[in-house]
Amino acid sequence: MIIVMKQNAERKDIEDVVKRVEELGYKVHLSRGEARTIIGVIGAEEHLLPSDAFEVMGGVEKTMRVMQPYKLASRDFSPSDTVIDVNGVRIGGKPIVVMAGPCSVESREMILETAHMVKAAGATILRGGAFKPRSSPYSFQGLGEEGLKYLAEARELTGLPVITEVMGSEDIELVGDYTDIFQVGARNTQNYSLLKALGKQRKPVFLKRGISGTIQELLMSAEYILAGGNMQVMLCERGIRTYETATRNTFDINAIPVLKGLTHLPIVADPSHGTGMSQLISAVSKAAVAAGADSLMIEVHPDPARAWSDGAQSLTPERFTQLMQELRLVAQAVGRDL
Amino acid sequence: MIIVMKQNAERKDIEDVVKRVEELGYKVHLSRGEARTIIGVIGAEEHLLPSDAFEVMGGVEKTMRVMQPYKLASRDFSPSDTVIDVNGVRIGGKPIVVMAGPCSVESREMILETAHMVKAAGATILRGGAFKPRSSPYSFQGLGEEGLKYLAEARELTGLPVITEVMGSEDIELVGDYTDIFQVGARNTQNYSLLKALGKQRKPVFLKRGISGTIQELLMSAEYILAGGNMQVMLCERGIRTYETATRNTFDINAIPVLKGLTHLPIVADPSHGTGMSQLISAVSKAAVAAGADSLMIEVHPDPARAWSDGAQSLTPERFTQLMQELRLVAQAVGRDL
Amino acid sequence: MIIVMKQNAERKDIEDVVKRVEELGYKVHLSRGEARTIIGVIGAEEHLLPSDAFEVMGGVEKTMRVMQPYKLASRDFSPSDTVIDVNGVRIGGKPIVVMAGPCSVESREMILETAHMVKAAGATILRGGAFKPRSSPYSFQGLGEEGLKYLAEARELTGLPVITEVMGSEDIELVGDYTDIFQVGARNTQNYSLLKALGKQRKPVFLKRGISGTIQELLMSAEYILAGGNMQVMLCERGIRTYETATRNTFDINAIPVLKGLTHLPIVADPSHGTGMSQLISAVSKAAVAAGADSLMIEVHPDPARAWSDGAQSLTPERFTQLMQELRLVAQAVGRDL
Amino acid sequence: MIIVMKQNAERKDIEDVVKRVEELGYKVHLSRGEARTIIGVIGAEEHLLPSDAFEVMGGVEKTMRVMQPYKLASRDFSPSDTVIDVNGVRIGGKPIVVMAGPCSVESREMILETAHMVKAAGATILRGGAFKPRSSPYSFQGLGEEGLKYLAEARELTGLPVITEVMGSEDIELVGDYTDIFQVGARNTQNYSLLKALGKQRKPVFLKRGISGTIQELLMSAEYILAGGNMQVMLCERGIRTYETATRNTFDINAIPVLKGLTHLPIVADPSHGTGMSQLISAVSKAAVAAGADSLMIEVHPDPARAWSDGAQSLTPERFTQLMQELRLVAQAVGRDL
Repeated sequence: MIIVMKQNAERKDIEDVVKRVEELGYKVHLSRGEARTIIGVIGAEEHLLPSDAFEVMGGVEKTMRVMQPYKLASRDFSPSDTVIDVNGVRIGGKPIVVMAGPCSVESREMILETAHMVKAAGATILRGGAFKPRSSPYSFQGLGEEGLKYLAEARELTGLPVITEVMGSEDIELVGDYTDIFQVGARNTQNYSLLKALGKQRKPVFLKRGISGTIQELLMSAEYILAGGNMQVMLCERGIRTYETATRNTFDINAIPVLKGLTHLPIVADPSHGTGMSQLISAVSKAAVAAGADSLMIEVHPDPARAWSDGAQSLTPERFTQLMQELRLVAQAVGRDL
Repeated sequence: MIIVMKQNAERKDIEDVVKRVEELGYKVHLSRGEARTIIGVIGAEEHLLPSDAFEVMGGVEKTMRVMQPYKLASRDFSPSDTVIDVNGVRIGGKPIVVMAGPCSVESREMILETAHMVKAAGATILRGGAFKPRSSPYSFQGLGEEGLKYLAEARELTGLPVITEVMGSEDIELVGDYTDIFQVGARNTQNYSLLKALGKQRKPVFLKRGISGTIQELLMSAEYILAGGNMQVMLCERGIRTYETATRNTFDINAIPVLKGLTHLPIVADPSHGTGMSQLISAVSKAAVAAGADSLMIEVHPDPARAWSDGAQSLTPERFTQLMQELRLVAQAVGRDL
Repeated sequence: MIIVMKQNAERKDIEDVVKRVEELGYKVHLSRGEARTIIGVIGAEEHLLPSDAFEVMGGVEKTMRVMQPYKLASRDFSPSDTVIDVNGVRIGGKPIVVMAGPCSVESREMILETAHMVKAAGATILRGGAFKPRSSPYSFQGLGEEGLKYLAEARELTGLPVITEVMGSEDIELVGDYTDIFQVGARNTQNYSLLKALGKQRKPVFLKRGISGTIQELLMSAEYILAGGNMQVMLCERGIRTYETATRNTFDINAIPVLKGLTHLPIVADPSHGTGMSQLISAVSKAAVAAGADSLMIEVHPDPARAWSDGAQSLTPERFTQLMQELRLVAQAVGRDL
Repeated sequence: MIIVMKQNAERKDIEDVVKRVEELGYKVHLSRGEARTIIGVIGAEEHLLPSDAFEVMGGVEKTMRVMQPYKLASRDFSPSDTVIDVNGVRIGGKPIVVMAGPCSVESREMILETAHMVKAAGATILRGGAFKPRSSPYSFQGLGEEGLKYLAEARELTGLPVITEVMGSEDIELVGDYTDIFQVGARNTQNYSLLKALGKQRKPVFLKRGISGTIQELLMSAEYILAGGNMQVMLCERGIRTYETATRNTFDINAIPVLKGLTHLPIVADPSHGTGMSQLISAVSKAAVAAGADSLMIEVHPDPARAWSDGAQSLTPERFTQLMQELRLVAQAVGRDL
């Protein structure tokens, strides 16, 4: 960390800061320029250092971090890509993994039908929500355990591993009895109670970026899970909140190559939430693959106009099947498979 | 809700939409303009209606909500202001209530000392964190139950009611044994498991706006608690995330009069998080009172440079005492007390 | 436009609104629901109607626009794609057009050398700034007319049409003596004096989205030029300003399919400004082509570390050449050429 | 400036950076930590140094500026507050100056009537637009010179100095023949042609923050005018663009104390644009004064429902008169007059 002193900082201010740095167990590197003094804080564990405290000390203008505040999630820690194996489906390798299915599991028939259809189109993981975080208390909140049972049945019949959302640490055991991958939604990206609990179990975790989370916050939230001992984490770009109202969210395509540079964890793109509009999913799915995503999560519903949630951002099975064919060409153009 | 059809929508498209609306139990009001047809959906419970589903139907251009998606939180439901009584301290009435104290309870001595000082300066509620949501797993996570005990002791010695954060539904019982008000932090504003559980108990809830939450989302999250039967909810503006990096957050001063217009619940302002910089707290505190806030939450620490968290946005007891004197004048200028 | 009245609106309020609508020459369609009255404003020219005025009338809750506020830029006006021919280079057709060159023209040798290199790599239009909008008055402001002359010389030697920025209407004549396409930068997207003047001349205009401009504002700014009689306008997505600081801007990949749906004008992507980081340009260029962009603008500099501006987001000729080869594969995968 | 090298930077990389810094005429201060090397760039004129160039050099991770990129606008340059005298009205002193009037000058009668009314209520400067930047080419664009003449007549009759917008450098002479203060609108904050031209003349300039401009960009734009030799610049906070749609803009109350700390120039608040809703203007005006604004600009219209522009954010004369009385109390509570 670098501490920039004000132009009019007094000698005593500088001495106080130096003393405080040394109290915390770090070394100091002083640089006195013509205009102002800059204090470098030296030590291996910069990510443990509070920056806040220095900013209120006399004569301090600002502090600037030199190193990243996460460790296990970084490329420095593990230069080679992490590949997560889920019952034989490998996420993070050469083939692009497509996870597909409805927003919510609405009935046994509906999830079984959708599972067969997405498998036929080439998806290798089945998604479906049983516990749903809805902004209104009056909206459908998911089928709960009943939905989990139908998902498990769909897995048995199709062989597709399943992914479903867990909304609180109190549900981990129940959801874990059925799911292959735990999904953490965008509203829970910084639910640290949940992240800590997921760090202590051993199933893979699919972590979505917060609704307006930064890339660094996403990596810090992953760090919570990794620090608990669970290294099976995949990160999902799902669009961020911006001032633009033409789309539900703004899919941050830049985040894909940025994350591939900063971390060894697999990167998933979610064009359904990233756009919020079914007619944009195809273009943005292709873009995500072209930009280097390892996996896609796409909402598919047999009858979007009758969906109990997220109908506007779900593909029909026909459009999904066509998209899979188009995606294969793009994947090959960038040296991947599908 | 209003459903706007595309210019080239066919007769069949319109009939399908009408049929779907009627299936859901609503009535239809058709308006055929020169250019396009507009379908009004009529029924008392518009907040129960899914908009998503219509947007994927053939010939639909967009849907627009006419009514607010919340009910119990709205001024229409309760035209007069809700006043919450916490051991005799009334939040939402003429006097401005100031909640003050450290970000984290760091030790018994520290919280007792701070409690006495903020009380002497005129604060009437004591804040202090025992369970801390920190973006890094390597940062201090709070003293836990030990911190709660010190807070309770501070209450006994000073008579000040206390407020502290609860991070997950699994902690409600423990935290509830000590606190007078449950605080829900900005990262948990849409943690619906937690909100539902808080709706089922009877202590007041202090609900912060999400880090980039909309005003409507804040009201919808309050609705989760109210719908559970707990009407003791206060809402807190604590700054939102924007592109501006000169401050930690952008305090949304507009939100105060907007919320006062939309809801009967008391409105609290948090200038510490709203600015992130101690030198701005005074100006923004006065602004919040001038704009109509019912209460302020301000971080105060006996030695901010040695604070274990949020030092940069904490006032010293001296500056807090001076601010309280200045605030009194502003409160009186807008017809309030302090 | 739809005018939603408040629940407690009085009969007189409704009559006043109806009267005002009729004064303005529109017809009214009244819909009295159980809870509130909704007033539909009927007339072909909704884009001419002020919404502001109604919102301050007694009893009005809000107004909502049904139709788009632009006309000549819309797909409704011209269902087939506009193709702009610049000295034989056709923008908006099947082949992806790549515009490349340095941020600033720094010298005669430098622009000639770059022109030859980008042409050899497959670019078909040469870019280069002579008048530069810089955030600091102390930064290099461009070579001015001298730079324009070097650009013209580069065109003669390579045959590549050139594009360069015009910063004010007072410079249109001068810049027009040399350039083939006028570029309007992101800080001038709503400089209406400039847009009006560009509408009156006949060279093609390359209009960038504002730094935090909405898609609708971009189309409205295009409408200024089109309304002046110049139909040769191409629109450029160049990243928007968000809270994310990991990249200079957030490239809005969604904007590409959204714009292709709303307008007939050709869409250009600028991954240099859209990311601000040279190591991200390749991934985002491929993504833009996969998402449907008609053209790319990419900054290329013979020695980015010595560039007078935008070095951090410029490719070396070697990396540009490699990117062009990779782009060709992606273009073919989505049915385009390069 | 500080240049942080990558962990794996080679000796040659470091030497190259050092050489480049020295080529540019600056000195180097090397700090070799355990993990990485940090290069301090020393020299008085850091604001002249391009950061971009270094970021593409081999082995460089990032660069961080230590000093502000502006100079004449900073408090370091002029510790005491600048007070601008406009025909005897002093902006930046103890009394709060209120500028009021309609968005657009609509007719002679209307501006004369409004001028008399706002003067009676206590305003000391008259605003009114003659050249209007409208997002639609089909909206009313202002009366032009005719409007300027009416403004000048209103000044003669009331003695109030006038302020009106100038949209391009080509209009400076014409507008300057009538106005006392040049207003630069939010869409022109980075119209550098205009700023340079305004720096060369001697009437005061009222510079609005960009629609999503940072505080630093606002100061840099002021620096363009100051560097031209015109030190009579006042800065206006008018709300920024955020994701929140409940209001037209988000008034950035934090910006007021931040700007008062960074610059000696007077700070004006514009609650009309800052909220976009007339019912919020009163609360936000009081907040701005409580936070330390030197001046307010408020839109007042004799009949907002019939305003040709911005009716929704204009006060009636009655409400403006009442607000002035309330503002006086708030001004006195914070040690100012009105």
